[in-house]
Amino acid sequence: MPDRPGSVLQASMIRLVRRGAWAHAGRLLEKTHPADIAQVLERLTPADRKAVFDLIRSDAERAEVLAMVEFAAWTELVGELAPEVIGRILQHMSPDDAALLLRELPRDEADEVLLAMGELADDVESLLGYAEDTAGAIMTPDFFALDEGLPVKTAIERLQAAGEREASFYVYVVDAGEHLVGVLSLRQLIMQPPDKRLRDFMSSDPIRVTTDADQEEVSRIVARYDLLAVPVVDNANRLVGVVTVDDVIDVMREEATEDILKMVGTTVEETSAPGPVRGAWIRFPWLAVAFAGSVGGIYLLSEFEGVLQKTLQISFFLPTVLAMGGNVASQCAMVVVRGLATGRLELTAVSRILGRELGIALLLSLTFAAALFVAGSFMSFGAPGLPQVVALGLFSSMMIAAALGTLLPLGFTRLGIDPAVASGPFITTSIDVLGILSFFTIAWLLL
Amino acid sequence: MPDRPGSVLQASMIRLVRRGAWAHAGRLLEKTHPADIAQVLERLTPADRKAVFDLIRSDAERAEVLAMVEFAAWTELVGELAPEVIGRILQHMSPDDAALLLRELPRDEADEVLLAMGELADDVESLLGYAEDTAGAIMTPDFFALDEGLPVKTAIERLQAAGEREASFYVYVVDAGEHLVGVLSLRQLIMQPPDKRLRDFMSSDPIRVTTDADQEEVSRIVARYDLLAVPVVDNANRLVGVVTVDDVIDVMREEATEDILKMVGTTVEETSAPGPVRGAWIRFPWLAVAFAGSVGGIYLLSEFEGVLQKTLQISFFLPTVLAMGGNVASQCAMVVVRGLATGRLELTAVSRILGRELGIALLLSLTFAAALFVAGSFMSFGAPGLPQVVALGLFSSMMIAAALGTLLPLGFTRLGIDPAVASGPFITTSIDVLGILSFFTIAWLLL
Repeated sequence: MPDRPGSVLQASMIRLVRRGAWAHAGRLLEKTHPADIAQVLERLTPADRKAVFDLIRSDAERAEVLAMVEFAAWTELVGELAPEVIGRILQHMSPDDAALLLRELPRDEADEVLLAMGELADDVESLLGYAEDTAGAIMTPDFFALDEGLPVKTAIERLQAAGEREASFYVYVVDAGEHLVGVLSLRQLIMQPPDKRLRDFMSSDPIRVTTDADQEEVSRIVARYDLLAVPVVDNANRLVGVVTVDDVIDVMREEATEDILKMVGTTVEETSAPGPVRGAWIRFPWLAVAFAGSVGGIYLLSEFEGVLQKTLQISFFLPTVLAMGGNVASQCAMVVVRGLATGRLELTAVSRILGRELGIALLLSLTFAAALFVAGSFMSFGAPGLPQVVALGLFSSMMIAAALGTLLPLGFTRLGIDPAVASGPFITTSIDVLGILSFFTIAWLLL
Repeated sequence: MPDRPGSVLQASMIRLVRRGAWAHAGRLLEKTHPADIAQVLERLTPADRKAVFDLIRSDAERAEVLAMVEFAAWTELVGELAPEVIGRILQHMSPDDAALLLRELPRDEADEVLLAMGELADDVESLLGYAEDTAGAIMTPDFFALDEGLPVKTAIERLQAAGEREASFYVYVVDAGEHLVGVLSLRQLIMQPPDKRLRDFMSSDPIRVTTDADQEEVSRIVARYDLLAVPVVDNANRLVGVVTVDDVIDVMREEATEDILKMVGTTVEETSAPGPVRGAWIRFPWLAVAFAGSVGGIYLLSEFEGVLQKTLQISFFLPTVLAMGGNVASQCAMVVVRGLATGRLELTAVSRILGRELGIALLLSLTFAAALFVAGSFMSFGAPGLPQVVALGLFSSMMIAAALGTLLPLGFTRLGIDPAVASGPFITTSIDVLGILSFFTIAWLLL
C-alpha cells in the first residue's frame, strides 16, 4: 500500500465521474477503504460528491464513509435522503458518530430518523441529551467495564464473549454501584495469573473527565497524559462513556482550522467551499467592522487637512506608518491568541506578557524608525523636518500597535469573548485610527 | 482527581517557589504526575523552571518529565547539565523521545551524551540517522513483532515474557525476512483458539509508512484511518519501527501552532517566551520585507504628487482603500493556506479556487464600494467626483487583493516554498503598492 493512496484513487475517481462511467466507479469504490472514499468525496464538487456517495451500495459502508467525512459535508450528503434511509445507515454507525450527525439535522428530521432506528436509537438519544462540544456529546457509550471483584480468568472470558467494542484497548473497572475505580490495559490483563482479582492489580484512580467537560479540555487531557482513551463519568462518578483518541484527533484538527480561520473573520464552514454568496455572507461582518472603523479614520484625517495642506508629502508616508503598525499588532496578537489557546500563556500574567511584547516592539520600532529616518532623508521631497516626523510617527504607531495587539486579545478573553474572533477587525481598525491620530499630531506639532 | 489538575497544582507550586520553600515544593513534586510537572514547568519563568526541574530527584522521573515538556524547553532544562548526567536521564527515556531531545543539542555535546548512555545509545543513534521531521525520526524501535507462523498460544507466551513496550496494543506480524505482512490487536489475539496460526487470522497488508515519510503525512494517515499506531518500514518493507498516536498528537499540536505563527512571521520558538532581543530578531525578517515594500510605496505615492496637489482630500481615503484590500487578502490567503495544509484544497484546482475567491470578492467589493460611495458623498469635502473615485479605488483594491491573496500562496506552494511563511509580508507589501497604483491611476484619470 503506497503512502498516499488518496491521490491516485482520487485522480481515477474524478476521471471516471467526469466521463460518467458510474458502473466502473462503483466497482472502484468497492475496493476502497472508507477513509479514502471519505477523502475523495471531500474533494469533489457538491454534485459529484452526492453522485459518488449514492454509488455506495451497502448501508454499513455508507455509515463508515459518513463517519469519516468532515462534519460540514454530512448534511449535504444525507440531506435529501428519506429519514428511514438515514436511520438504516445510522444503525451501522457507532452511537457517538450517529449523534454528531443528527445534531446537524433539523430537529424534526432528526426525530424521524431516530424513530426509524428502532431500539438502537436509545444510546444515540442519551448522547443527544448532552450539550454540544462536551465530553458527553463526543463519548461512546460502547465501552468495556468489569467488576473490580472479578478474577482475571472470568474477565478474559467476558472479553471473549463480548462483541467488538470501540474502546477495547482499555478495560475499565467499576464497583458494585458502577462507579469508576480503576483501569487496566489488555496487556496488563493477560500478564496476570488467572485467579488474581482485578482490584489487586488495576491502576486505581484513573484520569477521567465529567460529561460536561469541554471537548477542548478533553483533548488537552488526552494529549497531556498520552492516553488512548479517557473515561467519562457523571457527577456521581458513575462510568457512562469513553472518549477515544481518534475522536480527540478530530477535535484537534477541527479546532486548529477553526482557530486560524476565525482570526480573519471566516469559519470552518468555508472549508467545504460553499457558493460565493454564502462565502461573502460569512466574511462580511468582520470586514464591516473594519470598514466602519476606517470610515472613522477618513473623518479623522480630514480634521488634519491643515497639516496636509502645509506639508502634502506627509501623506506619502501614511501607508507605511499604518501598515507597519498593523504588522506588529498581528504578530503580538497571534502570539497571545495562540499562547492562550494552548494554555502556554496565563491570563493572570498580563504585565509579564505586555512587558515582553513592548520590549520586543521597542527594539523593532527603533530599528524601523531609524530606517525610515534614513529613507526619509533621501526622499524628503523638499519638506524640512519630514524625516524626523515620519520616524517618530512610525515609532509611535508601532508601539501603540504592540500594546493594542497584546491587550485586546487578553481583554476579550477576560470578558469571555473568543480573542481569535474579536481581535482581528478591532485591532485593524483601532490601529488605523490611533496610528493616524498619533502620526498627524506629531506632524502638527513639529512641522 | 479533578478535571484540571494543572491549574491548582501550578498555583501551589508557583507560591512555594516564590516563597523559596524548596523542600515543600520537592515533596509536592513527588506526588505529582510527570505530565502535570511538565505543564507547570512550561508556565514558570526560565529561572524558576530550572530550579524546579533540579528538585526532581530520580533520573527516571526527570526523563518522564522531559519527555512531556514542549520541545523548546528541553535544551533550556538540560543545557547546563553535564553530558554524563543527561546520558543517565536519557537511559530512562524511550529511544524516540531521547533522539528528539538530542537533535536539539549541539552535535559534539550530543555525542558525549550518547557515549555516556552506553549500549542503550544504539537505538537512539539509529533514529538520529533519519532526517528530522520524518517517520524515521519520530518512530519508536521498541515495538512488538511476531512471526506469522506462530500459534496463538506461543504468541501470548511471548507477549507475557516480553517487558513493557511502548506500542503494545497492536502486535505486528512479520515473515522470516522481517517483512511486515500483517497486524493484530491484542483483542483479536485473545479471541482465537490456542493452536491457530497468526497468518490465518491477522489483518494482512496493514497501512504503513516508510521511514522517509514526512511527519505531517504520518499524522494525516493516523488521523484518516483512526489508528493508534502506524508501522514504519524501510525501502525493502522490513519493519523497523512504530509511530504511536501520542507522538502524532504532539506533531499535530506543534504543526497547528507553527502554521498560525509563521503566517505572521514568527516561530514556535516564541512560545517559550525568549527575551526581547531574541524575540525581535525572530520577527525582524518578516517586518523587514514588508517595510522594504512599503518604502517602494512611498516613492510610488510621490509620483502622484500632482493628483494629490489637485485633490488633497483623496489622501483621506487612502488608509481605507489599502486596509480593506489587506483584510480581503488575508481572508483569501488563510482559506487557501489552511485548505492546502489540511489537504482540502488541491493545487491543481487553481482556476476553481480562484474563481470562487473572486466571486466572493466581487460581492464584497461591490457592497463596500457602494458603502464608500455613500460615505464619500457625505464627506466629499468639496471635491467634485471624489465619491466615484474612492468607490472605484476601493473596488479595484479589493479585487486585486483577492487575486493576490489567493494566487500568492498557491504559487509559493508550487515553487516548494511554504505558503504560510512567504504569503504574509509579500501580500501586505504588494497590496500596498498595487492598491496605491490602481487608486491613484483612477484618481488621475477621473479627477
